[in-house]
Formats: sequence, structure tokens, C-alpha cells
Amino acid sequence: MTDVFKGDFPAGSVWLVGAGPGDAELLTRKAERLIGEASVVFYDALVGPEILEMAARSARLVHVGKRSGRHSKDQGTIDRLIVEAALQGEKVVRLKGGDPAIFGRATEELDACREAGVIVRICPGVTAASAAAASLGASLTLRGLARKLTFVTAHARAGEELQLDWSRLADPEGTLAVYMGKAAAPQVSARLIEAGLPADTPVALVESASLPQERHFHTRLDLLPLAARTALGDGPALLLIGRAMARPEDAAVAVLEAGTAI
Amino acid sequence: MTDVFKGDFPAGSVWLVGAGPGDAELLTRKAERLIGEASVVFYDALVGPEILEMAARSARLVHVGKRSGRHSKDQGTIDRLIVEAALQGEKVVRLKGGDPAIFGRATEELDACREAGVIVRICPGVTAASAAAASLGASLTLRGLARKLTFVTAHARAGEELQLDWSRLADPEGTLAVYMGKAAAPQVSARLIEAGLPADTPVALVESASLPQERHFHTRLDLLPLAARTALGDGPALLLIGRAMARPEDAAVAVLEAGTAI
Repeated sequence: MTDVFKGDFPAGSVWLVGAGPGDAELLTRKAERLIGEASVVFYDALVGPEILEMAARSARLVHVGKRSGRHSKDQGTIDRLIVEAALQGEKVVRLKGGDPAIFGRATEELDACREAGVIVRICPGVTAASAAAASLGASLTLRGLARKLTFVTAHARAGEELQLDWSRLADPEGTLAVYMGKAAAPQVSARLIEAGLPADTPVALVESASLPQERHFHTRLDLLPLAARTALGDGPALLLIGRAMARPEDAAVAVLEAGTAI
Repeated sequence: MTDVFKGDFPAGSVWLVGAGPGDAELLTRKAERLIGEASVVFYDALVGPEILEMAARSARLVHVGKRSGRHSKDQGTIDRLIVEAALQGEKVVRLKGGDPAIFGRATEELDACREAGVIVRICPGVTAASAAAASLGASLTLRGLARKLTFVTAHARAGEELQLDWSRLADPEGTLAVYMGKAAAPQVSARLIEAGLPADTPVALVESASLPQERHFHTRLDLLPLAARTALGDGPALLLIGRAMARPEDAAVAVLEAGTAI
């Protein structure tokens, strides 16, 4: 195969495209171009209408709506639809919220394409943690204080225990970003404190990062369950945990406060 | 302050803008707009000419060239230049490689602006690990196998021991992304194996992710020092370590092989 990573889009091939955190302006220029060139676009629930409007008028838009465990189509069906479209000579874009390589279940679709002999490539996107940090006006890493940044996903069925190694995650020198963290907030708080993370570790909650309805809050680890229950709505929520999330004014008192623009 | 996170750019304000991994097409649409609106752009060594060409003809472009520890201007000087420009009523863009919130030393510049009463905001970018995964055609996370993704930076002076908690990092169920990892490759390999990570853990090395001169290689953890020494050039290198980096054909034999387009 020729070297096409810069962005060719031959008929019969597939691009897995990161749609970014939500704001259509946070799409990459490459993603915009690929969407415009596609003859068919398969998209998730988290991809908004402004982004879909970048497709050609002649393009077919297919909602394959995965969100928070409620899959309108199962993964096997999505894989099959993508491969079939490519084998029919379509230029296929598979749009995924955030970055396809981070909790995007890209592997299933990559494997399905490759097994069918279909050329498949990835266009990266801005992941939600980056967008959340930008909205908070904060860095996820701090020299000497937060040398490490870890992403996990807390997506589990109601009542299910998360299969995470809490002792490794409870690192006072790191920042922990928990994707899809709303339902699991009580468990995340309890397990991290049990594993030794101080109860007053700063936490930021960011819902619908980068979208007009975005909301963000600051709290501390022991108050996280309360904050998640009372302050968050139905949008996808990210928990950011660690000293990098302290605000300068937090030195004396930790508060739960509605986020305002920085 | 008014809610401006969607992207207003008043005179006398500063945007810290993520320039992404290198490829100008991987800039966000928002970054492109902000660069075009800026009256002055301060940029790092890793930001290429194609991106700078997006600035207005009238804009002043100022190289503040930080790269791999060789700072042509120290951080304090950069902070001062940014603040002074804003106080003079300029529309200031500070362009940083990757995402400003991930190993971008954004905090110093945010603090300097806020202390001077200058409005400062962040436009997120695609981080190098996302671009590297896209070039490899791989996901950084795998359901059940790589539930966790951790970023560290291995930027240390020659001969200096990295201050990292290797026992926490040596997690067979995670993917570890080591930014600026070339010089520290022998240390990373030795410490992770000492801490219990299997010697045959798959590793991908990606140099100059997303740029025309990009090169990538697959190896295993015990062969990483050799691979880094012999295969990498002078570009910024990312090490990706963990089972998610295994290629399907790796089942029987681990090889060091020049990367080709996927």
C-alpha cells in the first residue's frame, strides 16, 4: 500500500475520524476535509448537527448512535455496515466523539476493515480531557506536582463494580481523568480514598466539555459523590482528580461552586 | 468577566493555542481562526511554517523556541513578553506544540497573565499520543486489555535519573505513553522490567508523529534501548508501551521493523 497517512481518500476506503469533544470549531481541519469528501458518514450520538453539516449534500448520513451503553446498533452491526459500504466503493467516514484511539473502541472497526481487505485509517481528534482543561483554564500536568496524566473510563452498568486497579490510580503526583464518570462518582471517590488519596484532593467535574451547555464545578474528593449527584445533568461528564485541579483561591477553603468562565 | 470560552478574541487578551502534533491539517478550526485574528504570535520550535502562514500578513511572529531543554528564551522571559504584548493592547496567540494542558507548561503563562489582570484562555489541541496512534492505525486503549492510558514525560537532563514511580507505571493492563522519550529509553526499559512489566511487552516508537518525516517502529520492551538508539533520528519521539501496541502479526514473533503505511 502506498503512503497515504497524509490524507488521501480513495473510493472504497474508510477513515475513522475523531469528531473532538463537541464544539464544531474543535474539529481538526483534516476531519473537516474528510467529512466533506465522504459519500457516507456513520456517526455517534455525541456528534452534533453543526459537524454533520460539513458533509456534502449528496452524502448519506447514518446514525449508529452509541451512547452510555445504550447502543441503538450493536458493534458487530456497525462493523458490518462500514465494511459493506466500503466494499460497495463508498468513501466512508466513521465519526467518533473525541479521539478514536482513546476509549473509542476503534480496534473492532479497524480489525473488521482489515479482515475484509478494506483500507482503513485514523484521523485523530481532541480528546475530552484536553477540552475540559481548556474550559477550566488549567493544565492537566504540573512540573514537579503532577508529572503523570492517566485516563480511565468509568463506564459500567448500574451497580457493577469497576475493574480498576485503585492502588495504582491513587497517586498524589498524578492527574486522573475519569471519562463517563458521573454514575461511578461515589465508587471513584470511595476507592481512591481507601487507596490512600487524601480526601481533600481537588476535583473538577466538567459536563459537556466545549458545548454551549457546558457546566463545570470544583470540589474535593470526599465531596465528589454529592457534587456529581446534585450538580451534573445528563451530558457526558469527565472527572479530573489531582493537585493540578486546585485553584489558586483554594488554598484556604475548598468549595463546591458553579463554574463560571475563566 | 463575560462568558467567552466559545472564542471571542478582544484586544489585550491572550489565547494559549494548541498547535497539535505537527501536521498543519491537524490544527483545530478554532486554532486556525485565532491565529488568523492575532496581531502577535509567540511560537515554539515545534510549530512549523505552514501553521505560521495562517497568521495575518500584518501579524508579528515571535520565535520563543523551546525544544528539548534548549530554551532560546527562558520561561520568565516568555511570560513577560506575552503579558507586555497584551498590556499594549495586542491580540496575543501563544502557540504551543500538541495540547497546552499536556506537558505544555501552560501554568506559568496562565499565572503570569492572571497576575497582570490579562484575560487568558486555552484552545485545546491534538496531543502527540493521539497522532501517533492514528499513524500506527491502532487504539491506545483496548476493552479488557488496556483499560488505562498514562502519559508521562521523560524529559530529563543527560545522565539524570527520571523521578517517576515505576511500580505504578509498570501496569500490564495499561498503555504508557512516554513523551520526549528517546534519551531516556534505556532507563524506561530497565525500570519498567525491574518493576515487573514483561520483557516482551510490545512497544511502538513514533518520531515526528504526523509530519512528512515521521517514522515509526515496533519493538519489545527489552529491545527498546537498541531500537531507540539505532532507529530514531533527531525528531521528537514518543514511546508507546503496552499490549495495545501489539500488531496482529506479532503473535509468533516480535520484530524490529521499519514502519510502513497501514
